[in-house]
Order: sequence, then structure tokens, then C-alpha cells
Amino acid sequence: MNKTYLLTPGPTPLPQEVREAMARQIIHHRTSQFQNVLKECSQGLKEVFQTKNDIFMLTSSGTGAMEAAVVNLLSPNDSAICVQAGKFGERWTELCKAFCIKQEVIDVKWGYAVNPKLIEDKLKANSNIKAVFVTLCETSTATAVDIKTIGEIVKNSQAVLVVDAISGLGAVDLETDAWGVDVVVVGSQKGLMLPPGLAFISMSSKAQNLMDNAKSPRYYFDMRKAKKAWDQTDTPFTPAVSLVIALKEALDIIKKEGLAKRFARFSLYARAAREAAKAIGLSIFAKDLSDAVTAINLPDNIDGEKLVKTMRDTYGVGIAGGQAELKGKIVRIAHMGYISAEDTIAAISCLEKVLTEMGYNFKQGAGVSKAEEILRTAK
Amino acid sequence: MNKTYLLTPGPTPLPQEVREAMARQIIHHRTSQFQNVLKECSQGLKEVFQTKNDIFMLTSSGTGAMEAAVVNLLSPNDSAICVQAGKFGERWTELCKAFCIKQEVIDVKWGYAVNPKLIEDKLKANSNIKAVFVTLCETSTATAVDIKTIGEIVKNSQAVLVVDAISGLGAVDLETDAWGVDVVVVGSQKGLMLPPGLAFISMSSKAQNLMDNAKSPRYYFDMRKAKKAWDQTDTPFTPAVSLVIALKEALDIIKKEGLAKRFARFSLYARAAREAAKAIGLSIFAKDLSDAVTAINLPDNIDGEKLVKTMRDTYGVGIAGGQAELKGKIVRIAHMGYISAEDTIAAISCLEKVLTEMGYNFKQGAGVSKAEEILRTAK
Repeated sequence: MNKTYLLTPGPTPLPQEVREAMARQIIHHRTSQFQNVLKECSQGLKEVFQTKNDIFMLTSSGTGAMEAAVVNLLSPNDSAICVQAGKFGERWTELCKAFCIKQEVIDVKWGYAVNPKLIEDKLKANSNIKAVFVTLCETSTATAVDIKTIGEIVKNSQAVLVVDAISGLGAVDLETDAWGVDVVVVGSQKGLMLPPGLAFISMSSKAQNLMDNAKSPRYYFDMRKAKKAWDQTDTPFTPAVSLVIALKEALDIIKKEGLAKRFARFSLYARAAREAAKAIGLSIFAKDLSDAVTAINLPDNIDGEKLVKTMRDTYGVGIAGGQAELKGKIVRIAHMGYISAEDTIAAISCLEKVLTEMGYNFKQGAGVSKAEEILRTAK
Repeated sequence: MNKTYLLTPGPTPLPQEVREAMARQIIHHRTSQFQNVLKECSQGLKEVFQTKNDIFMLTSSGTGAMEAAVVNLLSPNDSAICVQAGKFGERWTELCKAFCIKQEVIDVKWGYAVNPKLIEDKLKANSNIKAVFVTLCETSTATAVDIKTIGEIVKNSQAVLVVDAISGLGAVDLETDAWGVDVVVVGSQKGLMLPPGLAFISMSSKAQNLMDNAKSPRYYFDMRKAKKAWDQTDTPFTPAVSLVIALKEALDIIKKEGLAKRFARFSLYARAAREAAKAIGLSIFAKDLSDAVTAINLPDNIDGEKLVKTMRDTYGVGIAGGQAELKGKIVRIAHMGYISAEDTIAAISCLEKVLTEMGYNFKQGAGVSKAEEILRTAK
């Protein structure tokens, strides 16, 4: 038997409606039929982004949207703050380096969120800083960042605030306009419940002003082209039609449940996973917790890579291991997207089973029992 | 009733097997399961590209792969030849401009292929030229280019030959290695019978040497990252998983029929469409004909945009109109991909019907009759 469960922090599982949409015969993108879908997606995305800003659609992974942010806001030798507290924060730094942006890096210990005061100090010390790059949910460490407070700080400066919400939008609260976030970049395969392949970037008027003057070389990710096309409900290059059509279905599902309910539900799963881990004697990696994904520290004598592989290849339950310096040391269980309470129980149960097989001693069933208790009381 | 036929030169229709693959539940990309698919796709792509070179997979439209070619081969102020004989040739020029490449543009009258001698002359006159950018099939004009002869010329120079085969690979012959083509860029939504969203770039060792030294700023399209990941059967960023899995199915279909048979079949449809057009008193736009798509000149008093819209919105038959200076003046009927003899007849029949409705006088049925005759005698 080959029944599978997927609780990786991207890609996340696809709802039935999305899979059915993916299977539809292709339609041409320069037609009123497709324009209608684009319009509906645009409206739905604005609700999920909690913004009135333009949101441009890119055919790329989330990293493409991150590059779009860098090259459309900045010129070579401009200065920017890059907050790095994990693998994805480091990507902002790498991108800035690739495009000759002077980086003021704020290095944060993995598992912690940046102290907003550090951003404030750097902005005060260097009035040339044009952009602040942060991460909403650092997937590699399952850490949440206080975007609201950072927004208040950056709003009063000359800089724009750019948030990598690739793995967080639709999963945890991000009030783009209310919090003063100028640019939000997102990938399709996390909170939005789509396959990977689409990315999105919202840009405030402050950000679009920078775009008109930025001198970084760009073509495919030139948001001036995207803006021009978007104003006519079009895309500058052939879009990933099937993914856009599936997006419409995913946005309908999100709208029907409502953002607040979704955030509360994922938060509950996160609490269940954390308490379950503690109940079997394990600790939580992150100090500043994200509800999109939970990172659990493994006992020293457990090979985390083998654990993840066994759960997936023997039992069909996909969770993620650690990346870079955390390789083999943690497991990560996702809560965002098309994931249910039952999936969460299945993942904890399978984790218990494989930990037992690998020789870790604990009171079997304590994890699922605790998780069930939390999930039940909240209903 | 809402039955549709699609004969646009991209996207082209999806085979059943591809649609079923698109609908599968998502799997994680950093797993042996996905690596096996990547390996099979890599092998299958090499057969279709007719190359032993590395082929890297990009999550983007075909234009992303064109940008990858420019930024990985060249540094600012390098010189390159851009052949422009239509909308897509112009894209090479625009890309080079965006990345500060000195362009030696060869402007060719639309509908004609470049005379290879012009490329030879430019290469002889300027020994600093590092790359020659051409288009296999200029979709905007339905024109074919003599890549074999150009390959012989460029092979003896210091430059690399880069072919935009976005709308041509798998549809018409392109012997990458035998003809000395260093770089081939391709999109998924044409001859490969996939939805848009994936792109491919093959790079010879001569091209990969340039890549190691090119100084154009790049990150998402940095093929050094792609090469490093590809050597471990991986991609540098999250790939469009569903499209890759569907690609495997499409490649199986192509392999089963065989490239030679496919080229012959599309060539036959092209001949049928051309002769049908002539039989109803219309002429063919291109002088150097591509078999991937046919462009038919419309009578002066027929509004081409309205014609295409009526065929699509009233009768469900999707063909393309003209772009840029050809807007409203031609229609384009695709032959590549998952298109049959019966689809071709349906398109010609619908074209006859709407031309009649719009007041064009001709012997009704002469087109389909001629097409059927050609399609029949070839079997």
C-alpha cells in the first residue's frame, strides 16, 4: 500500500479542487476567458495579502520574487539591511551580493527573531539605507518575526520594508497595509495550497516609485513590464496558465473558510505538535515560535535524516529534516495549507513509531494523546 | 455546448496522460521519488534536444531561459549578434540591451529567414563577438531559420551559437550537437505538449566555460548554481514539481512516436494548411516556411482580430492572430504538439465558416477538401 501524508513546509498538499483545476485542458492566456481568471485571482490575492497595493504574478519559484524585489527597488551600490536568522534570511544577503547592493547584515542566532531595535539603530546610523529585507516565517528554523513592530520603525524612515512571506502568507497574520509593509513576496506552494511554480509580489506606491528609478539590470523580473501588462489584465510573458487557474480554486477555499479561522486552526495544530513533542520528552528548537511550521529537536543519538527517510519511504508520512547546520538534528512539521487535525495526529503518531524503532525511550502514545487533547478542547 | 479545439502556437493542447499527471497529489522535491523523475526527464530531454550537453530546468517561461543564456554567457560591454526577424528575435535585442551587451543587430524583413552570410560577415568584421543569438522558428511570422548552415559558420568562430527553440523543439528538426549549437533554450508549452511554466537550457562545454567567467549579475538564473545542483540530480530552487512530473509523460509520448515521425506529421499538417489556404484564395505570409506554425494573409477587408475572436468565442476553435505590425492582418494555425489531422481539418473548416460569415467570397469547402486530399495521400 502506498498511502501518503505530506506535512512538509512546502510544498504542502493540494486540495481536490486544485488538483481538478490542474488537470483541465489548457486555454490560451491572451483571451477574455483567462483575463477573467486573472481578475478574480487579483481580487482574491489582495484579500489574502490584506492590501490594496498592486500584486504582480510571476512564473518562478519564490526566489524569483525575492530577486524581483531586489532588482526593482535598488541600484548597484545602494545600501540595504538584510536580516538573516536562517537559510532564507541568508538568501536576501546572497541576492543583494549578486546585484552589488551594499549589505548591512543583521545576524540573528538561529531560532530567534530579530530584535526590531537593531533595525531601528541601523536605519538611524545610516540614512542611505533604501530597503530593509526581512522574513515573516523563517522556515529553516520555524521562527516568527514581529513584522508589525518592524513596520512601525521602517515607516518612519526613508527605507521600504520588504517581507519574504513565501512560507507564511495565508498561514499566519500579515497585515500588509495596516503594518506598513511596502513589498511582500510569496510562493504558491505553501499557505496558498498550490504546486510550486507561481510567485507573487505586492508593491506599495513608495516601492513603485523606487522601481521607476532603480538601475539594477533586469528583464524577466522587470516589474515595470509587469505593471504595464497588469494594468491591461495581462502578464508580460506567458504565465503558468494551469497554476493560475488552480489558484482561483485555492483562493475560493481560503475565502470560504476565512483568514482568521485559518490562522486559528494552524495555530492550534502548532500548539498540538509542540505539546506532543514535549510530552515525549523532546524540546522545541525555535524560541520565537511560528505557527506555520514546528521544529522539534531530536535526541543526540537519533539520526534525523534516517528518521525522515523512514517516515516517508516506509510509512508514507512526509515531514522535513533540518537544513545546513541543523541537518540531522531537527524535524519540521508543517501546519499551513491543506493540512488537517487528523494529518497532524498521523504525523505525530508516525514520529513516535519511528523514534521507538530507532531506540528512543519514551512513554509511547503520550504525544498523540496530548495532541488529541489540545485539538479536542479547542473545538 | 462548449467543446474546444486549440491550434495556437503555444500553449498547445495537453495529452490526457499529461493532464492526469498534472492532477496528481504533490510530492516533495528533495526526495528519491522526485530525483528519479528528474533523471528520466533529463534522459528524455537529451533525446529531444539531440544533445549530450547538460540541460538545465528552469521554473519560468521561455523568456527566463533566454535571459539565462544572455547573463550566463556574457559580461557587460561584451558584443553579440542579435538576429531579429520578428517579435521573438527582437526579444534577444531587448535582453542584450537590458544587460548592457553591445548588440550587432541583423534586421531581417518579417517573413524571411536571415541569410547566414550576413552572420559570417559580421563575425569576420568583429572578432570580439562572443555570442550569436538566433531563433529556430519565429512564431510571430511562422518562419524557419537555417540553423545548420549558421552552425557551420559560428563553429569556426570565437562565438557561441544560441538558438531560441522555444517554439520549435520537438516540432521541427534541430540537431543540437551535429549542427554545433552551443545553447538551446526551450519553453514547455509548445512542441513538448506541457502547460507553460517550465523552461530548459542546454549548454555545451564552450558555453559552460563562458558561464564560469561571465560577469553579468544574476541569481535566480545563475546556471552555475543550476550546474552544481544538477550534478546531484537537484535544482537550486523549488522546481515546478507538477510540471516536471507531467514532462515525464510528455517525453514518453514523444519517444514512443519517435522524433522523425513527429516532424513528418507536423510537416504534413503544415502543407495541408498552406494548400487549403491557397485553395480558398489566400496567400501564405512567410517566405521561409516553418512547419511548426502557418501564417495566412487575410483579405484586406477582413478584421483578423474579430475573425480569431469569433472562431474562439462562438465556435470554440482557438487559433492565433497577428502580433505587432501584423495585428489583424494574418491568422496563425499551429501544427506542433498534441495536434491531429482532424484538428487541422476542424480549424480550416471553422476558418472557412467564419470567413464566409464575414463576407469573404470563395468556393466553400475548397480548403477542407484540399487539406483532406493532402492528409489522405500521405498515409
